[in-house]
Amino acid sequence: MNTFGRNFRCTTFGESHGLAVGVVIDGCPPGVPLAEADIQPYLDRRRPGKSPLESARMEPDRVEILSGVFEGRTTGAPIALLVRNQDVRSEDYDTLRDLFRPGHADYTWQAKYGLRDHRGGGRSSGRETLARVAAGAVALRCLAPYGISIRGRVIEIHGATEPEAMEAEIRAALKAGDSVGGIVEVIASGCPAGLGDPVFGKLDAAIAGAMMGIGAVKGVEIGEGFGAARLLGSEMNDPIDADGFLSNHAGGILGGISTGEDIVVRLAVKPTPSIRKIQRTVDTTGREREISVGGRHDPCIAPRIVPVAECMMALVIIDAMLEQAKYRGWEVR
Amino acid sequence: MNTFGRNFRCTTFGESHGLAVGVVIDGCPPGVPLAEADIQPYLDRRRPGKSPLESARMEPDRVEILSGVFEGRTTGAPIALLVRNQDVRSEDYDTLRDLFRPGHADYTWQAKYGLRDHRGGGRSSGRETLARVAAGAVALRCLAPYGISIRGRVIEIHGATEPEAMEAEIRAALKAGDSVGGIVEVIASGCPAGLGDPVFGKLDAAIAGAMMGIGAVKGVEIGEGFGAARLLGSEMNDPIDADGFLSNHAGGILGGISTGEDIVVRLAVKPTPSIRKIQRTVDTTGREREISVGGRHDPCIAPRIVPVAECMMALVIIDAMLEQAKYRGWEVR
Amino acid sequence: MNTFGRNFRCTTFGESHGLAVGVVIDGCPPGVPLAEADIQPYLDRRRPGKSPLESARMEPDRVEILSGVFEGRTTGAPIALLVRNQDVRSEDYDTLRDLFRPGHADYTWQAKYGLRDHRGGGRSSGRETLARVAAGAVALRCLAPYGISIRGRVIEIHGATEPEAMEAEIRAALKAGDSVGGIVEVIASGCPAGLGDPVFGKLDAAIAGAMMGIGAVKGVEIGEGFGAARLLGSEMNDPIDADGFLSNHAGGILGGISTGEDIVVRLAVKPTPSIRKIQRTVDTTGREREISVGGRHDPCIAPRIVPVAECMMALVIIDAMLEQAKYRGWEVR
Amino acid sequence: MNTFGRNFRCTTFGESHGLAVGVVIDGCPPGVPLAEADIQPYLDRRRPGKSPLESARMEPDRVEILSGVFEGRTTGAPIALLVRNQDVRSEDYDTLRDLFRPGHADYTWQAKYGLRDHRGGGRSSGRETLARVAAGAVALRCLAPYGISIRGRVIEIHGATEPEAMEAEIRAALKAGDSVGGIVEVIASGCPAGLGDPVFGKLDAAIAGAMMGIGAVKGVEIGEGFGAARLLGSEMNDPIDADGFLSNHAGGILGGISTGEDIVVRLAVKPTPSIRKIQRTVDTTGREREISVGGRHDPCIAPRIVPVAECMMALVIIDAMLEQAKYRGWEVR
Repeated sequence: MNTFGRNFRCTTFGESHGLAVGVVIDGCPPGVPLAEADIQPYLDRRRPGKSPLESARMEPDRVEILSGVFEGRTTGAPIALLVRNQDVRSEDYDTLRDLFRPGHADYTWQAKYGLRDHRGGGRSSGRETLARVAAGAVALRCLAPYGISIRGRVIEIHGATEPEAMEAEIRAALKAGDSVGGIVEVIASGCPAGLGDPVFGKLDAAIAGAMMGIGAVKGVEIGEGFGAARLLGSEMNDPIDADGFLSNHAGGILGGISTGEDIVVRLAVKPTPSIRKIQRTVDTTGREREISVGGRHDPCIAPRIVPVAECMMALVIIDAMLEQAKYRGWEVR
Repeated sequence: MNTFGRNFRCTTFGESHGLAVGVVIDGCPPGVPLAEADIQPYLDRRRPGKSPLESARMEPDRVEILSGVFEGRTTGAPIALLVRNQDVRSEDYDTLRDLFRPGHADYTWQAKYGLRDHRGGGRSSGRETLARVAAGAVALRCLAPYGISIRGRVIEIHGATEPEAMEAEIRAALKAGDSVGGIVEVIASGCPAGLGDPVFGKLDAAIAGAMMGIGAVKGVEIGEGFGAARLLGSEMNDPIDADGFLSNHAGGILGGISTGEDIVVRLAVKPTPSIRKIQRTVDTTGREREISVGGRHDPCIAPRIVPVAECMMALVIIDAMLEQAKYRGWEVR
Repeated sequence: MNTFGRNFRCTTFGESHGLAVGVVIDGCPPGVPLAEADIQPYLDRRRPGKSPLESARMEPDRVEILSGVFEGRTTGAPIALLVRNQDVRSEDYDTLRDLFRPGHADYTWQAKYGLRDHRGGGRSSGRETLARVAAGAVALRCLAPYGISIRGRVIEIHGATEPEAMEAEIRAALKAGDSVGGIVEVIASGCPAGLGDPVFGKLDAAIAGAMMGIGAVKGVEIGEGFGAARLLGSEMNDPIDADGFLSNHAGGILGGISTGEDIVVRLAVKPTPSIRKIQRTVDTTGREREISVGGRHDPCIAPRIVPVAECMMALVIIDAMLEQAKYRGWEVR
Repeated sequence: MNTFGRNFRCTTFGESHGLAVGVVIDGCPPGVPLAEADIQPYLDRRRPGKSPLESARMEPDRVEILSGVFEGRTTGAPIALLVRNQDVRSEDYDTLRDLFRPGHADYTWQAKYGLRDHRGGGRSSGRETLARVAAGAVALRCLAPYGISIRGRVIEIHGATEPEAMEAEIRAALKAGDSVGGIVEVIASGCPAGLGDPVFGKLDAAIAGAMMGIGAVKGVEIGEGFGAARLLGSEMNDPIDADGFLSNHAGGILGGISTGEDIVVRLAVKPTPSIRKIQRTVDTTGREREISVGGRHDPCIAPRIVPVAECMMALVIIDAMLEQAKYRGWEVR
């Protein structure tokens, strides 16, 4: 399934080292002002190669709106967004054609499909997230006039929580030919109460699915999250007075439906699996091999997950907003 | 959305204090032996009132197979399962008609729908999980011959990790008119490699959505989970040799697709929001009030989430198994 | 797939000679007044046994609302409707256990599933339409305050178009141990312009799928339908003046979207396949046999399709109304 | 909804006079040999400008496979197909910016969205079918090794059924500044028995929805179709002997499931609504106007619908084949 969302449906396509990556958005409301300039800044922010601590792949990643916009406004028709791949050095990956990189999708993809595009991870590459970011940028453009904003940041790297210490952890890993994990927090502000559906369509369930669907994410928590397991009910419950909730341990969601408070989510990001350090593995024939993964990789992927996580949050929220709009637009008589 | 799954689609219905709860399963393969006796034990296990530490609601919860089974085998037609409600003391909830219980879905449900069935939480009640367990039992019946088994357990309550200490924490909370949270672990063994789809249909994304969709769950992690944020890549990656993976930090999933190793999931369960302790709240007119939630409630919901989490895991896995069966059944020529 | 609709999702279940038939409606707007008395008249109208020209199966077909309604109004939760089967003479069908009735789903169901509930057609029985009618009655209850009404009628039977002649055709067929086909017309009045989605979600496409999904229907046409193939563009196009459309050759739909004029649909209904006349067939072992289908059958199914077609039309329209409500509820800023 | 299919999901995008039209196919089985050369012939066949009786829009319509194919085989990842628009004379449509063309989607699109891309019909243009044909070509490539073939033809134009008479009807209409309708027949051969699902997922329901979703189609019939309304059961039923069905009045589908016989479908195509003849209409302000539609239009659209209808049939069949593959791949133990 390469489609996300029920109402604001985003179908992504494209491989790391293919011709292009892109997304088709079906269900965007008509009349929203939209131009490439609304999307490009998000792609620029996601783009690697901006610091020595990031993958050195250098591409302009220019987005093109192929459809769905007429005279500067969305028409209600599908919005196709396309980014051509350019800095494609597939030969970097030739040695990996028959090898399973530990911690990567190589083994499982082969088990599933019986064949795979090994170049740069193919479809399972982080480059696919470019399409999600492009779609998320459109969602954010729709949400902005509603006063909804989403901001993410790295709050921990390899146990360090201060900016300088976090950077030091990344440098140390890079130097050691290794990598480090971290924690990303995303907060959505300005969401109305009432978003999300009971039972299987809970807003937190949708967020958890969206976030765990980002490569390298191994955990998701809302509000107090795992900390809630160590609290008493009297500590966890958010009291209410005439002005609203007095605290936000719930992280903005109760019974799967938004309370109107900030929606607070944290993601556990595993260390980048591509490391220079020698690891044991096998090739596609089952023969034991050793591997050192070269090429261009981030020693810590958490910072680059921030814009992706923000955009996935935007996609979840606009989907819930549209679902809720159905009730507002339906007048019971 | 009250439907779960793409291939093994379960639609649940029913309120805590309505006439019945139930589920319709659409997409169960034909020819599977199935009787009420395959489902009842799971409902019995989920049922409250089995210990002084649990809600005292006493119901036989007899399941009836209304359709989809003929001469002891599934036919491929929808399987409707029905459980009538019996021990319904709606009057327990009369005082709650106009009050928002802190930590509950009362406030958000009212914000969403403009009206609600206040009796026992209505549709947002834990009693709805009965339908999920019934569906999960059918899934487990289908999966058993494949050698797939799923087992869950409480591994932590209010910080305690030993059985006696955990029970002590619950007793203490009960005595104090309070409640405690905990952590549940679920492990699926025997799953083949190749389950799950890349990008938005990742197996871990589906699991995260399914688990976060259980009331009171505030966090989900796979394998090392949040611990992965504190590891190096060389510690996190699972090396492979000719016999397979040498460790399982990934928790059985790489790139969103199963590796064939155990799938390991942990859930953070918040303390039951219904507590006798006085809390501040408002009523539906916005007037400030105090509330002490009486009725029959578990001081710790974690143990009762175990069968629900197992069953949700079963539903995710059978759905992925059926999706994968499509590839096996399609022969490229 | 036993689910119909995207927004007003109806999942039906139950076999002709099983315990019950029913439907779960997910997505009904909250706050709609609803009681069993709103649904029962539609079931009574669909019920056989009301005239000597219809199947003699006699059942009260009492509907029970199991969930989703509280204090006389829908809550937004799934509405489960249940009808117990009563007049079940499965022994009538014992001789058919191993025989494929010509014109029936016996052969194809066996080919698909490898086994089947042969009693009264099992899931492929016309009795399944009872669940659709129950769901349609709820849809009609929601649509009525909007001024939308739907009426169907038989306009032709075995070539005859006058009531008396039509009845004579049915009597003649009954006497001959044979059956006759007919044409049903359904008209929806009061629908606003703008319903339906371009491309694959066209309103006429949804209607065509819904109508062709009724057993025994072999053709569907909108407005001029097949007659349009014999017209000039200047005859087919509906001119517009300041008061609106001057004609309705389009049958109320242009480009897949409603115009606001009456939506006019006609269905071709094949003769009931169950006939007493001797037919050639084979049994499940492939041995050639002769068959005369006894039991209780309508010599012409067209009249009984009328309420089913009306209800399917209601389900299509409420689904499109809810989809459109999304746009109304979403305010572009 | 711009997505077609459950298993072989095709999402189309693009407007008549925008930058491009295209489709993303999600769910194509891996390992299928595929190149642009497999798709291009179908686009060439669909392309206008091949005869004086067709629209004179001249474009090479070169398809580009952007993703999902590696080393000549599909990988299981989404296949994005793109065709850039070239011969775009939007100025032809400037006079239509504020006018509703009778018989077109202009009025309804405006009613639905409040704004529209008026150039060449925008998204509701026949040019969108290019994307369907591209997707259908991929489906046909997958189906061919299974021995499944699909062929369509025009069988009637404005009442004429002989090739020469049909052509004469088109020429007469062209000369008169008018247009004519017709009937298209599509036959799928080689389909196995067992395709399609009971109740709402019937194969004929899917076909009817797919065909009625083609612009200008006003009717769909299967097998005897509307003729069945004039038959006796003893005439309509297809007897069976040891070698199979002795006739095919059913058109290859019983109870919504394929019988293994040819699947026979006919479509009623209305006359092209764009005609030079003066028609009455209104503009977007409601003022009465007269209109003569110039530009490049086919006087009869039926011939150009043939490849589109074949491709939609292919999409329905591959979707059902993949659904059925799920059962074959699932081994009940």
